[in-house]
Amino acid sequence: MIDLYTFPTPNGRKVSIALEEFGIEYTVHAVNITKDEQFAPEFLEISPNNKIPAIVDRSNNRAMMESGAILIYLAETHDRFWGDDRYETLEWLMFQMGGIGPMLGQAHHFLRFNQGKAPYAEERYATEAKRLYKVLDQRLIDREYLSGSYSIADMATWPWISRYEWQGIDWADYPHLKRWYLEIADRPAVQRGYDVPMHVNPIPRPA
Amino acid sequence: MIDLYTFPTPNGRKVSIALEEFGIEYTVHAVNITKDEQFAPEFLEISPNNKIPAIVDRSNNRAMMESGAILIYLAETHDRFWGDDRYETLEWLMFQMGGIGPMLGQAHHFLRFNQGKAPYAEERYATEAKRLYKVLDQRLIDREYLSGSYSIADMATWPWISRYEWQGIDWADYPHLKRWYLEIADRPAVQRGYDVPMHVNPIPRPA
Repeated sequence: MIDLYTFPTPNGRKVSIALEEFGIEYTVHAVNITKDEQFAPEFLEISPNNKIPAIVDRSNNRAMMESGAILIYLAETHDRFWGDDRYETLEWLMFQMGGIGPMLGQAHHFLRFNQGKAPYAEERYATEAKRLYKVLDQRLIDREYLSGSYSIADMATWPWISRYEWQGIDWADYPHLKRWYLEIADRPAVQRGYDVPMHVNPIPRPA
Repeated sequence: MIDLYTFPTPNGRKVSIALEEFGIEYTVHAVNITKDEQFAPEFLEISPNNKIPAIVDRSNNRAMMESGAILIYLAETHDRFWGDDRYETLEWLMFQMGGIGPMLGQAHHFLRFNQGKAPYAEERYATEAKRLYKVLDQRLIDREYLSGSYSIADMATWPWISRYEWQGIDWADYPHLKRWYLEIADRPAVQRGYDVPMHVNPIPRPA
């Protein structure tokens, strides 16, 4: 049994989707970041960086922060979703952790939430979003998933791509990534884990 | 024997320092990012995200990109530098990959290289740099290193902190982090790996 502390953001969705994919029983504790609940002292005990998602594994009382570390923990303790090659999976998980997540996060900040405050930064992150999408699209030309078969690298990346509407993306430029995106959107576990704990927002689907 | 493709940036330094710490023999191939050498087709074969560092392990011909994945690979294949707890080490490595690296990287971009182009962004990343330093400082109040004993999480984080002069940091606010920073700066392997392949820049030391 896992206690999941989360909110429906791309990083939060990585872990709720993963728990569904692994078939792990979990209890959700919503941490409403629009009300600054991530700064509550009891949450900081689990996640000293004041970010969701975090988990506590009740079988051993281990608390973990950082979605990338949580995904590795789940994959190691359940010995699943390593794709065709463990180290290729780790490479693309790190590409998500260091590139896709933080840079698309900046795109959201400047293009969606703070438009007009820094046109130079808007341009910077819109350009970087396109570059990152192209790297993924190229990777998927001759592979079904980022590491061959479906893995934690896909689970980490997909929720960020599902915010494509905030990133100024023209899907015509990324046909392989679009195929990958829609294929994963059809997975029952992804549909169950997508909007935890709200279950109100549908998965966006490009035309 | 490892082939290391690098340039003296914080991400590059992670891996040259790690190779020195692990005592692994390596050959350096400079990829001069000031001359766009990271876009050369033969380099993109190894690192499709056009970023240094990358390695090729000549014992099995495995090519790897992404500094975080490379550090995990070295720690697993040599079974060393996991700190006191493997998963805590992974948490703080992910904190570096998703927070310290990309956000201090943005601070460098706006505060150092493009000052005046986006005052709003300068303020944003200067504030985030201080927040990240505080998280590290708190972590180190009662621990010698991020994961108890010295680990790949420290090797990943330290080179980013060594660029403190670009980040608008007042060291008086972070006494525990300063102790940690100077302790690691004294390690012979860090001194050998710091400025690979240039060996001209000294390690900065706060007064």
